[in-house]
Amino acid sequence: MKEEVFYAKGVKYIKEEYPEIYESLVKLNEAVYTGKVLDYKTQKLIALGITAAKSDDRAIRQQIKSAIEEFGVTKDEIMDVLRVVLLTSGNPPFMKAVKILHEVLEE
Amino acid sequence: MKEEVFYAKGVKYIKEEYPEIYESLVKLNEAVYTGKVLDYKTQKLIALGITAAKSDDRAIRQQIKSAIEEFGVTKDEIMDVLRVVLLTSGNPPFMKAVKILHEVLEE
Amino acid sequence: MKEEVFYAKGVKYIKEEYPEIYESLVKLNEAVYTGKVLDYKTQKLIALGITAAKSDDRAIRQQIKSAIEEFGVTKDEIMDVLRVVLLTSGNPPFMKAVKILHEVLEE
Amino acid sequence: MKEEVFYAKGVKYIKEEYPEIYESLVKLNEAVYTGKVLDYKTQKLIALGITAAKSDDRAIRQQIKSAIEEFGVTKDEIMDVLRVVLLTSGNPPFMKAVKILHEVLEE
Amino acid sequence: MKEEVFYAKGVKYIKEEYPEIYESLVKLNEAVYTGKVLDYKTQKLIALGITAAKSDDRAIRQQIKSAIEEFGVTKDEIMDVLRVVLLTSGNPPFMKAVKILHEVLEE
Amino acid sequence: MKEEVFYAKGVKYIKEEYPEIYESLVKLNEAVYTGKVLDYKTQKLIALGITAAKSDDRAIRQQIKSAIEEFGVTKDEIMDVLRVVLLTSGNPPFMKAVKILHEVLEE
Repeated sequence: MKEEVFYAKGVKYIKEEYPEIYESLVKLNEAVYTGKVLDYKTQKLIALGITAAKSDDRAIRQQIKSAIEEFGVTKDEIMDVLRVVLLTSGNPPFMKAVKILHEVLEE
Repeated sequence: MKEEVFYAKGVKYIKEEYPEIYESLVKLNEAVYTGKVLDYKTQKLIALGITAAKSDDRAIRQQIKSAIEEFGVTKDEIMDVLRVVLLTSGNPPFMKAVKILHEVLEE
Repeated sequence: MKEEVFYAKGVKYIKEEYPEIYESLVKLNEAVYTGKVLDYKTQKLIALGITAAKSDDRAIRQQIKSAIEEFGVTKDEIMDVLRVVLLTSGNPPFMKAVKILHEVLEE
Repeated sequence: MKEEVFYAKGVKYIKEEYPEIYESLVKLNEAVYTGKVLDYKTQKLIALGITAAKSDDRAIRQQIKSAIEEFGVTKDEIMDVLRVVLLTSGNPPFMKAVKILHEVLEE
Repeated sequence: MKEEVFYAKGVKYIKEEYPEIYESLVKLNEAVYTGKVLDYKTQKLIALGITAAKSDDRAIRQQIKSAIEEFGVTKDEIMDVLRVVLLTSGNPPFMKAVKILHEVLEE
Repeated sequence: MKEEVFYAKGVKYIKEEYPEIYESLVKLNEAVYTGKVLDYKTQKLIALGITAAKSDDRAIRQQIKSAIEEFGVTKDEIMDVLRVVLLTSGNPPFMKAVKILHEVLEE
């Protein structure tokens, strides 16, 4: 199953059956992505860096896809994020994210 | 002991006694912080986000200090990083980093 | 391969080839799940919360399945555990666990 | 500095200077701690388990204190949570939390 | 896709498109695996222990494979590493690594 | 408070008040540190590597001390473990452990 579908289904499920959680997530997202000082794209790159540092396959793939599709983030920008992952979190999460980036670009 | 001293001593120790590690770290830092696509300040904010997400007191304090002192990063810019930490990593690492930021600003 | 089979095989393998580890695990499980003050079901929900917070796909699926099959834990009880995961560990592990819960319920 | 003061200051700081984050946290807390199916105390024990599994000194101490002071959670109940931490997360986070529990009880 | 191919492709990709990162990784590897005091095989077992403690499926599989193929590490040696994972990191990462070891040996 | 005292008190507390947990820990330790294939010292170095990778100050200090005092592990052997931490887990846990090692050696 495609990752977008995986996550979209999760969100739909929450929205329908647990609307009070859904609303708190919407409110939280609004309070997080304000674009007040840092722009939204920079915040998304930070989210991508944090996600890659945690080595979570599915979440990395989803973050990379949404960074490219929603913000037009380039391959080199993502690699600049992943360089920081290499330094702060080691080679295994770096190589994993590099490989997922490569797969996403070839899809 | 002040955090800067804590880390400066660690680096000094490595440089004197394990020069081959020191050199590889210098080379790694150069390959990471290239300022090619993303600027160095943005990469530092990504490093700060990853560090805060890991809830490591000492490392967070050091990252916040160096972001402020070396890059003139503002309180609101750091808070915009920490907003992403709240969403991706939960309330405990967020509150910890907020409190450390507050302490650093009052020193 | 089904998750139950995955784990059952691992346990079988340990039991046959490394009986001293198997025995220590049995003893450890007995010392952990005593049902003395908190009942066993509550302890299982705590185990589920910890597992979900760590974003480990396979372990989450197995914990959700065993909570449902062995203890008759309901969907809403699991969601009450996952709410805590959202607050303490952020949105990515929460959404992942919600989606796995949804998949398990549809199987 | 006492942990309660540490966290209380962090919350006060957020409330005054970043009210939109504060409000989203209030809303999130309401959506998390509903007491709908599992009671609030059980959810707090789950939060304690997750926090202890992450080995974060300050957060563990705060969780233990608030569990005792706000919910009248007993030492044996906390130990039943920590048993699960031992099994799911290993001996170091378990021993750390046991020791912090012991310190809190002696204060 | 086989794990070796997964990682080999990642390395190839870095080497071709980001040679400065590749060179820093080569340099880093040389500074890490010196075989000066501990031999290379012991260092690889330490890397395997760290990787298994982090519960990262793909990285565990790759580490186990390379330990066996490059260093002739035996099943019992790997199990002695995983025993330490059980004690320091809990049952879920232990059982996961045991199962992956078993799968690798049967391939 | 000294770290040894911190941990010794925790163990004493468990032994007196929760003997069934204490016994399961003894049994677990026996099943883990068998010295069957890898010797006990190598297993201790693996435990040190895993602990350092998790950036837990107290546990790192205790592991380094016990490695030196109980097994006569040398500074260079510990540095060979920490090199692997640098590669697998990044610069922050590496620098932290280097600094703690340095402090322990100067005490």
